[in-house]
Amino acid sequence: MSPIAATPEPPYYAVIFTSLKSPGDEGYAQMAERMIERVSQQEGFLGFESAREEVGITVSYWRDLDSIERWKADLEHQEAQQMGRSQWYQAYTIRIARVERAYSLHKDTTR
Amino acid sequence: MSPIAATPEPPYYAVIFTSLKSPGDEGYAQMAERMIERVSQQEGFLGFESAREEVGITVSYWRDLDSIERWKADLEHQEAQQMGRSQWYQAYTIRIARVERAYSLHKDTTR
Repeated sequence: MSPIAATPEPPYYAVIFTSLKSPGDEGYAQMAERMIERVSQQEGFLGFESAREEVGITVSYWRDLDSIERWKADLEHQEAQQMGRSQWYQAYTIRIARVERAYSLHKDTTR
Repeated sequence: MSPIAATPEPPYYAVIFTSLKSPGDEGYAQMAERMIERVSQQEGFLGFESAREEVGITVSYWRDLDSIERWKADLEHQEAQQMGRSQWYQAYTIRIARVERAYSLHKDTTR
């Protein structure tokens, strides 16, 4: 699977999650893996992209706002959110945005 | 400066640039630095966030679509875009999105 999400034609939605981790992050990696598994099964989930250096950026893509709301309300995800607030993150910003235009370059690597 | 952009109340715009680098990327780091310098002086530019692991994600924030168009048309930036297409990137997707909601956590680290 490409680490660049294969999303449909706009419009659709993006949740941009930018975070700074806390020094102590016990259990984080395991929960992150579990959340990726779980979010992938959500109705309306279109894909995600993620990278971390000084800051972590995870962008998830969604069919509509309702799908985002359902994922936010998911019980296991709520537990993860609570751990994020209390333990794992020093700071974060979450932005919900409507993707209006998109374009891509994909070079053929098979030649 | 925090690596999480301090953006105003929505609405505003985000340009989500997700990329895979090519093996040969001579001149990339220097150009990237120059572009950060240059974009920071653009009218309507609100900030940016960036991280690279397997994939690179750079999100820049803008007051409006006109500001995004002006930056896209900037001559030095166009040169960088051309180098990106021909040399630096194996693949990328650029998404232009209207940020409709945002919320943040910032823990006080001074205590």
